[in-house]
Amino acid sequence: MRIAVLGGDGFVGWPTVLHLSEAGHEVHIIDNLSRRWIDTELGVQSLTPMDSVQERCRIWHELTGRRIRFHLIDLARDYEIFKAWLTEHRPEAIIHFAEQRAAPYSMKTDRHKVYTVNNNVNATHNVLAAMVETGIDAHLVHLGTMGVYGYSTIGAAIPEGYLPVDIAKLDGEKVEQEILYPTRPGSVYHMTKSLDQILFQFYAQNDGLRITDLHQGIVWGTHTAQTRRHAQLINRFDYDGDYGTVLNRFLIQAAIGYPLTVHGTGGQTRAFIHVQDSVRCIELALGDAPERGDRVKIFNQMTETHRVRDLAEMIAGMTGAKVAYLPNPRKEAAENDLIVKNDQFLALGLDPTTLAEGLLEEVVEVAKKFAHRVDRSRVPAVSGWTRELGSRVERDPEGKALREVG
Amino acid sequence: MRIAVLGGDGFVGWPTVLHLSEAGHEVHIIDNLSRRWIDTELGVQSLTPMDSVQERCRIWHELTGRRIRFHLIDLARDYEIFKAWLTEHRPEAIIHFAEQRAAPYSMKTDRHKVYTVNNNVNATHNVLAAMVETGIDAHLVHLGTMGVYGYSTIGAAIPEGYLPVDIAKLDGEKVEQEILYPTRPGSVYHMTKSLDQILFQFYAQNDGLRITDLHQGIVWGTHTAQTRRHAQLINRFDYDGDYGTVLNRFLIQAAIGYPLTVHGTGGQTRAFIHVQDSVRCIELALGDAPERGDRVKIFNQMTETHRVRDLAEMIAGMTGAKVAYLPNPRKEAAENDLIVKNDQFLALGLDPTTLAEGLLEEVVEVAKKFAHRVDRSRVPAVSGWTRELGSRVERDPEGKALREVG
Ligand SMILES: NC(=O)c1ccc[n+]([C@@H]2O[C@H](COP(=O)([O-])OP(=O)(O)OC[C@H]3O[C@@H](n4cnc5c(N)ncnc54)[C@H](O)[C@@H]3O)[C@@H](O)[C@H]2O)c1
Ligand SMILES: NC(=O)c1ccc[n+]([C@@H]2O[C@H](COP(=O)([O-])OP(=O)(O)OC[C@H]3O[C@@H](n4cnc5c(N)ncnc54)[C@H](O)[C@@H]3O)[C@@H](O)[C@H]2O)c1
Repeated sequence: MRIAVLGGDGFVGWPTVLHLSEAGHEVHIIDNLSRRWIDTELGVQSLTPMDSVQERCRIWHELTGRRIRFHLIDLARDYEIFKAWLTEHRPEAIIHFAEQRAAPYSMKTDRHKVYTVNNNVNATHNVLAAMVETGIDAHLVHLGTMGVYGYSTIGAAIPEGYLPVDIAKLDGEKVEQEILYPTRPGSVYHMTKSLDQILFQFYAQNDGLRITDLHQGIVWGTHTAQTRRHAQLINRFDYDGDYGTVLNRFLIQAAIGYPLTVHGTGGQTRAFIHVQDSVRCIELALGDAPERGDRVKIFNQMTETHRVRDLAEMIAGMTGAKVAYLPNPRKEAAENDLIVKNDQFLALGLDPTTLAEGLLEEVVEVAKKFAHRVDRSRVPAVSGWTRELGSRVERDPEGKALREVG
Repeated sequence: MRIAVLGGDGFVGWPTVLHLSEAGHEVHIIDNLSRRWIDTELGVQSLTPMDSVQERCRIWHELTGRRIRFHLIDLARDYEIFKAWLTEHRPEAIIHFAEQRAAPYSMKTDRHKVYTVNNNVNATHNVLAAMVETGIDAHLVHLGTMGVYGYSTIGAAIPEGYLPVDIAKLDGEKVEQEILYPTRPGSVYHMTKSLDQILFQFYAQNDGLRITDLHQGIVWGTHTAQTRRHAQLINRFDYDGDYGTVLNRFLIQAAIGYPLTVHGTGGQTRAFIHVQDSVRCIELALGDAPERGDRVKIFNQMTETHRVRDLAEMIAGMTGAKVAYLPNPRKEAAENDLIVKNDQFLALGLDPTTLAEGLLEEVVEVAKKFAHRVDRSRVPAVSGWTRELGSRVERDPEGKALREVG
């Protein structure tokens, strides 16, 4: 298949590109490299030393004889360029990772909010409009997030996108209908994924586009079968306060002998998936495309849930690190349950790597191995979620003010 | 009160500005005049001769001694300028009309789709982000549309924004919850209003912004008490295939002796409100602001519903015009019922002008009076809703091809 991977230079995009190239597909990366620019803006870098996308593609070619083509296009701004690209290359599938994906970054300042909405909504809408305009019948696979469900105020298990509800008709009789799960995003970033959902619903209904939306949990892990093949194919590993997920931050804290900082009670439950499984899920979703005229197909792309404090204890147990509790900068419920359905991927044959099995490798092969590269000033960073919270001061585990935040 | 009217040069914005100025408020118009530019793009003009916004404000001042200030700002592009404006003027209320509002225009070409999404989402989000950033505790009143509800597939009366549904919890017990009505927008324009809803939900919840969203029906009528006071204060009247509502188009067809063209069976039911009532509703909503921390307050701003063919017959009855049935360019159900709740405005004292009472004045005072200004080539125009429909040919009532469409 000819596949366009939008955002193929990113953390999940890059291993997906390699996996699909190895599987024999003709893979094209479209990326504006904004993520690398944001590293520069924030003055941070991947823990793992990361080469340019051009160099990575060259090494892959040297190693395997396969070509991955890279096209520098800003999907949010260069509508006409992307349309021309589509017309020329006519991909059979398009995988769309190309959005600003950090919740803390999206809440940093008004400029970051405006950027995130503008970038993500326009990128997604431009892709849809260009697909309709060029008449390309590609299967669009989008990476969404579990965060569109928001805090599970409903007390029901989280279904795969659509929730059955009973609605009273005019005569009082109740009828069951499946509706898009009522969204309650908790950050501007998550909100943009809720907006994406409405865009997809419209274009599937009005123009018959074939769309799969993957509501993904937090991706952890660094290596896949392909990234392991050469030091310079290694995936990025973010641990700063904006892009570093809670798990990566624990790993780094443990590696440098800093306490694992848990916000609030650590009672928030989060959904997780290993990057190798994420890549595999995308392949499974590609092979299970909806038909023209179908509603958007939604999968929950996650394999297990954990409370944040349990994760911290797990890593503390493996490494001997201490756990420290700090106030929560996010505006969210202190404790939440999260019961998530993921039957569809299991039915398609997904065999997950669990945290319990895979985490030690991350500790040893990644966090400890590259610990000398850690920028310690990045370890306690955090963005405030509202103006009041934003002006709070971040404190270290002993209560000493580390720096003003927001 | 100091009130900013975003999009105050538009069809509903202008009479709102005059109404609020007359009521003693300090009114500021913020507009990028894009609607006038679109007239130029399409080569169309208002049936009623319309002066520049500066000239209109000057005449109002001459007549009443009151000042209306005009500020040329593009809300979608000039975030920093708008933020500086807010900081300087600190309005107590912001009324937000500033979006591209024609469904056919939003579906014309991919360029128009991209423009509409970009303009509307960024305008709304920039307003919200700037309100949070400047810490202005203004009440935001937004003009939404009945179109966010979409085709009433549910078979229930359309509530005011929130729908009560029963949801099965984990243990099987069903609990009632109110959710945002599951949106099913029928055009890119309507879709942007669905996106706005999610933006409002987030900013009300995360930042405590006080927001009212008015889901408005089709606005008809030209005059209000204030626009009548001087020939040069007259409101705009659109009748072209993009901006002209179904009712305005019937009025013009009748005025020039053309048959009233009904698309499909004319069985689509639409909700209507007179512009004088629309202006009054906005004033009522201003006086009924939600509290900080409340969810978004949603009103249905409409006063009656009619099937399109019944409207045609009503106008045919008043004018002697014929009715002609043509294929429908929109992708929508041929016949639909529409039962809409609007209890909240009635409870606040709204006393509606009905079509049956007010329509004759439109026929005589507007359509016939300015019939000499009608551009006849604009009467049959239509935008295709999908690529297939878009390439259809528009036919006159006798079946003669009038022009290629799309
Ligand atoms: N990493 C996770 O834990 C996780 C969890 C859930 C969902 N997701 C989703 O998966 C997708 C990929 O995540 P990731 O971790 O790889 O993110 P990433 O930031 O590492 O990668 C995103 C890539 O998209 C590119 N991009 C952004 N805007 C673009 C634009 N306008 N035009 C072209 N390219 C653009 C960036 O340069 C970057 O290379 C995202 O959409 C994200 O929301 C990720
Ligand atoms: N007219 C109707 O029948 C109707 C029905 C339902 C809802 N509405 C809603 O009411 C609002 C007003 O409708 P209208 O008929 O007066 O529309 P209009 O097009 O006449 O007025 C909109 C005004 O907003 C301005 N504008 C657009 N984008 C802007 C931007 N980025 N920055 C600054 N100004 C901008 C335009 O120049 C114009 O003056 C719209 O939001 C519309 O969706 C209208």
